[in-house]
Amino acid sequence: MRICGVSEKKLDESPVFEAEMGSVGIVETKSYTFAKPPELFELDNGEKLGPVTVAYETCGELNEAKDNVILIEHALTGSAHVAGRHKPDDKHPGWWDIMVGAGRAFDTDRYYVICTNLLGSCYGSTGPKSVNPETGKPYGLSFPLVSIRDMVRVQKELLDFLGIRRIHSIAGGSMGGMQALEWALIYPEMVESLILIATAPQVTPQSIAIHKVGVQAIMDDPDWNDGNYYGRGVPGKGLAVARMLGHITYLSDGILWEKFGRKHKNLATMKQDLRSQFEVESYLEYQGKKFVDRFDANTYLFLMRSIDIYDAAEGFGSLVESFGRLECRKVFVSSFTADWLYPSYQSKQIVNAMVAKDLDVIYCEIESAYGHDSFLIEHEKLTYFIKNFLNSL
Amino acid sequence: MRICGVSEKKLDESPVFEAEMGSVGIVETKSYTFAKPPELFELDNGEKLGPVTVAYETCGELNEAKDNVILIEHALTGSAHVAGRHKPDDKHPGWWDIMVGAGRAFDTDRYYVICTNLLGSCYGSTGPKSVNPETGKPYGLSFPLVSIRDMVRVQKELLDFLGIRRIHSIAGGSMGGMQALEWALIYPEMVESLILIATAPQVTPQSIAIHKVGVQAIMDDPDWNDGNYYGRGVPGKGLAVARMLGHITYLSDGILWEKFGRKHKNLATMKQDLRSQFEVESYLEYQGKKFVDRFDANTYLFLMRSIDIYDAAEGFGSLVESFGRLECRKVFVSSFTADWLYPSYQSKQIVNAMVAKDLDVIYCEIESAYGHDSFLIEHEKLTYFIKNFLNSL
Repeated sequence: MRICGVSEKKLDESPVFEAEMGSVGIVETKSYTFAKPPELFELDNGEKLGPVTVAYETCGELNEAKDNVILIEHALTGSAHVAGRHKPDDKHPGWWDIMVGAGRAFDTDRYYVICTNLLGSCYGSTGPKSVNPETGKPYGLSFPLVSIRDMVRVQKELLDFLGIRRIHSIAGGSMGGMQALEWALIYPEMVESLILIATAPQVTPQSIAIHKVGVQAIMDDPDWNDGNYYGRGVPGKGLAVARMLGHITYLSDGILWEKFGRKHKNLATMKQDLRSQFEVESYLEYQGKKFVDRFDANTYLFLMRSIDIYDAAEGFGSLVESFGRLECRKVFVSSFTADWLYPSYQSKQIVNAMVAKDLDVIYCEIESAYGHDSFLIEHEKLTYFIKNFLNSL
Repeated sequence: MRICGVSEKKLDESPVFEAEMGSVGIVETKSYTFAKPPELFELDNGEKLGPVTVAYETCGELNEAKDNVILIEHALTGSAHVAGRHKPDDKHPGWWDIMVGAGRAFDTDRYYVICTNLLGSCYGSTGPKSVNPETGKPYGLSFPLVSIRDMVRVQKELLDFLGIRRIHSIAGGSMGGMQALEWALIYPEMVESLILIATAPQVTPQSIAIHKVGVQAIMDDPDWNDGNYYGRGVPGKGLAVARMLGHITYLSDGILWEKFGRKHKNLATMKQDLRSQFEVESYLEYQGKKFVDRFDANTYLFLMRSIDIYDAAEGFGSLVESFGRLECRKVFVSSFTADWLYPSYQSKQIVNAMVAKDLDVIYCEIESAYGHDSFLIEHEKLTYFIKNFLNSL
């Protein structure tokens, strides 16, 4: 087991020793820019965009054959910063740090892990918050509506630039799983295996409806101002409402009982003051505010819509027909019992359609009370399954 | 079978004949006012209110013994207008018309049905929208936070006024079920039987969290203005967002697939225009707008909080202990399989606690894809069960 990074010296005196075992240490965000005008990047919907920058991070070493690549796809509000720390004193490591490192699920002693920030996001890749070189101002609503396919095609440009022609495995949870799936659909010859976690071939109308409520809250915020708020006040109230609702959908009824129940400070106050709060309400408020500090409202609008319109069967007639294109050697699919945003029946649709096309699929429905967030929380179970899966390839 | 009301003459030529069979015809909203200052009504939280008006409607005839009373409790945004029409050309009848009438589940040939508008609502009973006689202005946020118990105590005042000492049955769905339950808890000697539909002894933290999102959307609407919007623009945007979210929780994933699926007008437009909509989104927008025309935002805030703080076990230690007080001869409890707002396990908690106290309970979990709205939609199934139940008394 490799222990690397700046914490090395102090590790054995430190209480975080256990957590730091296998950490990838200090990482940096790199970026690649292409489609510089007049060479624009044509999007799925026919619109054109350029230049296009994609931010990415890597951990581990690319081998000589360049065939030990694992591509990790982030979800709605994630970033390329999947593991390690940018600075020694960063309070938190990357978003899937516990899964990526020496000896971890995605073992950086063996694999070269790449994570990109998706096209349209606000963490270094080109998105609505980026400056449009034609106007010198942020795109805002003039940014094109990019599809999951566009996000994948941008990653392909990066891999071409890095000289990578084969991907050992692509892993993604939630919207990240949609990108993984789309990779295998449009570049079947490049993708050896897939790890699809808590994802779906298309979101449910319930999920579209929930997005709609968030979208409306943002657009109704007077500070949103038709998306022209850069350099002025951000539409923090609307964005916080959207995020609070998002958080409810990432959890489950069961875990809310367990974490908060109906706890509040004082019954007499609750009965008198309309503004007094149950603990679950304070928690949501906190999550809403925290999100406003780190995420861009227009970006949230665009990415929710990219999810809404994704359909793995689009253009193929049916999911089974679409999966006829896949050339993966093996696929791992997992869902979580209490996930009602990307419910298990949707993972089973993926599995059934793959089985119908004779693909080698392992499916695991993991018992967890955490709801959709399970894919970030149930790392012990996922580590077990993913290690076994990668070893079986 | 009695056919009454103004449509009588034309019934046999009319295509609505079937629907009108047994209609209670034309009804009017009456009201009773008490607690005229200085005789104020003391609320559960110690605050005082007066005068208190309660709006109510009745159908059928009160018998001489005054023992054929059925009290129907409405849910969050309902009114006293449970059945029939106010005017011959009313587009819609009362909210549970299909269940109340001659030969219907609540047979007005046998029973005297009373439905009151709950304390704190905006359909004739005293609430935040009512004028505070002390200031000559609407109460707004100065209205006291009333509890489910307060709502029931106001109904008791009305029944005292009407000279009614026994209630044959109290029926309520959702929040209406909470009122029914509370009636039997605080006036056990008056309540002969209970019909509890899609209700709970207390709402889940998930439900509190969902209310919180709606509350925040309303309070963030600049037109809300700390509740002082009467005579100015109403906070329609915030209220519509809250209602849209409410609607999602009244339905289910399954029924959204069935009703809307992922339908939209044009794929190319969906991929280009952030503001284009799936059908489920247009539906929600429509529901949101419609609600703003008929409901008061402050009232919505107060009533959601009344639901949040309700706990049938409060003051009794446990639900089982609390149910030790009940003197009902029989209880009918039903829940619906796809209801995730008042899930079946909460009805089962009621049933189990009643069984533990040797109460005669019939429980039925009704298969329905409609979610919480089932209690208004599955009238055929409910009619069957409720008729049998009432006949068995």
